[in-house]
Amino acid sequence: MSSIRPALTALERALLSTMAVFHTYSGCRGSLRKVDLKTLINRELRQFVQVSTLEQLFRDLDTNGDLRIDFQEYATLVAMVTSARGTFLVQK
Amino acid sequence: MSSIRPALTALERALLSTMAVFHTYSGCRGSLRKVDLKTLINRELRQFVQVSTLEQLFRDLDTNGDLRIDFQEYATLVAMVTSARGTFLVQK
Repeated sequence: MSSIRPALTALERALLSTMAVFHTYSGCRGSLRKVDLKTLINRELRQFVQVSTLEQLFRDLDTNGDLRIDFQEYATLVAMVTSARGTFLVQK
Repeated sequence: MSSIRPALTALERALLSTMAVFHTYSGCRGSLRKVDLKTLINRELRQFVQVSTLEQLFRDLDTNGDLRIDFQEYATLVAMVTSARGTFLVQK
């Protein structure tokens, strides 16, 4: 009898959702070019991130300077945005 | 006429969801004690994080050594778990 996996929690679903967005925009390349990040921000984070910050954001995220945002660097974006929003919410 | 805000995207909802979990477990303290982090992992990340890693995880996250996980340090947990799961998914 196959073991029945417990349902995912809201937080686990949220993390899977953030991963799915990366894979949607990185496609088979497995990393985001600047144009991909711009499209992702425009479509998926338009209320949390201003696309005018794209250049600076890309420089901050691209820690290995390969002009690509790999998954680890994307996870940093998730943390940065979560942190920025969260700190804003805590101070309100 | 009040401006109608566009609906949140899936990624924005996911980030808000991660923030809400922090506030649920940090309560009015605004930070997580080790016991709070343990409860959070047990209830919210039971399929992604093994509670046996709690001690190491707490040390890694508590970068300022105040025995509390503030929101910034929690955002790093979100990135770490997202990254660990994402890299696992990419390699599959």
